[in-house]
Amino acid sequence: MKQIEGGICAVRGVSANGIKTEKMGLAVIVAEGPAAGVFTKNKVVAAPVTLSKGIIETKHHLSALIVNSGNANAFTGDDGFLDAVEMATMLARELDVKPETVAVASTGVIGRRLDVSLIRELLPEVLKGLGSSPECSREAAKAIMTTDKAIKEVAIEMDCGIRIGAIAKGSGMICPNMGTMLCFAYTDAKVPADVLDAALKIAVDKTFNMVVVDGDTSTNDMVLLTSTCKSGIKPCMDCLDDFEEGLIYVFTELAKKIAKDGEGATKLIEARVVGAKTQEDAKCAAKAIVRSPLVKSAIFGEDPNWGRVVAAAGYSGAELEQERLSLSFSGGGSEVEIIKSGEISSSYDLELLKRIMANDEIVITLDLSMGNEQATAWGCDLTYDYVRINAEYTT
Amino acid sequence: MKQIEGGICAVRGVSANGIKTEKMGLAVIVAEGPAAGVFTKNKVVAAPVTLSKGIIETKHHLSALIVNSGNANAFTGDDGFLDAVEMATMLARELDVKPETVAVASTGVIGRRLDVSLIRELLPEVLKGLGSSPECSREAAKAIMTTDKAIKEVAIEMDCGIRIGAIAKGSGMICPNMGTMLCFAYTDAKVPADVLDAALKIAVDKTFNMVVVDGDTSTNDMVLLTSTCKSGIKPCMDCLDDFEEGLIYVFTELAKKIAKDGEGATKLIEARVVGAKTQEDAKCAAKAIVRSPLVKSAIFGEDPNWGRVVAAAGYSGAELEQERLSLSFSGGGSEVEIIKSGEISSSYDLELLKRIMANDEIVITLDLSMGNEQATAWGCDLTYDYVRINAEYTT
Repeated sequence: MKQIEGGICAVRGVSANGIKTEKMGLAVIVAEGPAAGVFTKNKVVAAPVTLSKGIIETKHHLSALIVNSGNANAFTGDDGFLDAVEMATMLARELDVKPETVAVASTGVIGRRLDVSLIRELLPEVLKGLGSSPECSREAAKAIMTTDKAIKEVAIEMDCGIRIGAIAKGSGMICPNMGTMLCFAYTDAKVPADVLDAALKIAVDKTFNMVVVDGDTSTNDMVLLTSTCKSGIKPCMDCLDDFEEGLIYVFTELAKKIAKDGEGATKLIEARVVGAKTQEDAKCAAKAIVRSPLVKSAIFGEDPNWGRVVAAAGYSGAELEQERLSLSFSGGGSEVEIIKSGEISSSYDLELLKRIMANDEIVITLDLSMGNEQATAWGCDLTYDYVRINAEYTT
Repeated sequence: MKQIEGGICAVRGVSANGIKTEKMGLAVIVAEGPAAGVFTKNKVVAAPVTLSKGIIETKHHLSALIVNSGNANAFTGDDGFLDAVEMATMLARELDVKPETVAVASTGVIGRRLDVSLIRELLPEVLKGLGSSPECSREAAKAIMTTDKAIKEVAIEMDCGIRIGAIAKGSGMICPNMGTMLCFAYTDAKVPADVLDAALKIAVDKTFNMVVVDGDTSTNDMVLLTSTCKSGIKPCMDCLDDFEEGLIYVFTELAKKIAKDGEGATKLIEARVVGAKTQEDAKCAAKAIVRSPLVKSAIFGEDPNWGRVVAAAGYSGAELEQERLSLSFSGGGSEVEIIKSGEISSSYDLELLKRIMANDEIVITLDLSMGNEQATAWGCDLTYDYVRINAEYTT
């Protein structure tokens, strides 16, 4: 497999565009075929999630997608649901497709009525620029950003010729549970919806569900995967494993981009927990480390306060014994072993640890020595800017 | 019941003292009698927790307590355990009591060897000033502080004459699970250890376990309750309920002090969840609200972004339906209803909400309308100073 240019538009059969105004961003993606989705597990669910989930779970097929940023259309009651339906209908009419094959997504402030008339105003301009160039994917990716600073798109071509591309957004309120922030993924592999669904769930679990920016699970998380089938390539059973691996690759890249672009972030934290008794233990401990405000503040300050890492693993719920723990930090090509089997390592070098912490990508490896399971989670440091951004969000 | 002066020294039979130097704080409390304790559930447990827990659970009796601040004596291996034993032995020798009736507590940096020789140096001075004046309680409360800015002590006298007093510390790494930060409570009621134990568990669960500063559970959390029996008053069955209520009162006051003095905090947040189906649901939702970095940043910025409160309740795990939610904010004697039965309330007044958020104590009331259970949790806002304090802690 190799990474290629073009984002979602690298996938045959996908056209897209987006625009971003001061008040709102609007993106449209047109791609017809079998589709699967995963959605937030928050019990307060935004209207577009309810609508899109219903479509995916009954039709297993999408023609197009309309997404706005700036307003989450969450906690907006029946009016909000009708607004989401109106968005789908508006696009369906323009594209001459069935409204019940158009998914809708929204991201932004919770609890405010969506300005549908503004969407109606912006839509013709978006549709005029619809196309399959790399710029079109980029414009769509830009339009769905809120507090994001980096555009998030990835595309790969697999050895058999199948392509997978995706765009995503997400910077705050990030602690995906099942679904995650917004991610729209496309492939041209010829696969039915149930195969997409199975691969999607596995891939999301290992990637987006392992990202924590602040521990807040959004009301609007959504990952959609649509296959245009346009490569004509129908993966064999063995190739299906490759397809899943390709999807995991694309999502891992996006997951890391989201963590690194976490609100106010200056550093990417990767927590690898190995030697866990169960997969659940490994995930729990890895997520607790990247979620801990104390670990996150220490990483920001480049303070070698590693005790907070073992404290976080200790309260995570994962089974562990402190006598068995081994801990190391790495970054910028160097690695330092801090704890070995529960004791401060003889090779522990505080100065080296400080140099490692000065890098902008820090890998923390914690070996529980309780079994053979492992998991990786991604997060970012907690900075003055995170506080500033979120203290001023709606005002 | 009435609040009285004197902290732990208000309780008959308690003497105390403490000193604080640049490198370390040291406190000693002498009070003989039946005792109970609750301890951190973090699987990485500090040496003094292991020692004190063992003493409480086998002897159910304490003569005295020695506490240092500045070093947590956590993740220090066998040496750390021997250091804790040495602390107990040192004090036992001076007081001529059995070492196995002396509890030990520590708070500070994790993973560094304790300077026992410094404790040996400071101890004579602490013992010289041992006494039962209000100042003695205050010096002990001061000596155990780390990043705390406020001294935390409370004492009450109940109508029957029984007194309860406690001192506590805690400002960061606060998300108690079972035990909590450090709190040393005393009573002169004539009650056996098993009664103390039952009352302590109930009181801690409703108070300290409902405080979240940052969601990090410490390795050193500990609450000890000792009865000197010196009032000579043996509560009858009915009075035992009063005793429990008194204990809850003392702990609630301290819990609020801890939340308000959270690292970098400028505001106290009280989240009251009512109408929950189960007690667990009420607790879950209330804690999720005060734990959410997004809610906490919004409170700091006085940003009326109430959508984050319902989002936090939504992902908390508590059973809820968004159509049933009612939400209000109050502070400074005013209250504003924001949501009523899932819809924006007709009496919602954004300007009033902004004025309420300008107060330094904000009460958030969320009615789930699913049943009759309720719970209150306390937290604080997330500020630039929290990040600064924790980015610079060990360096």
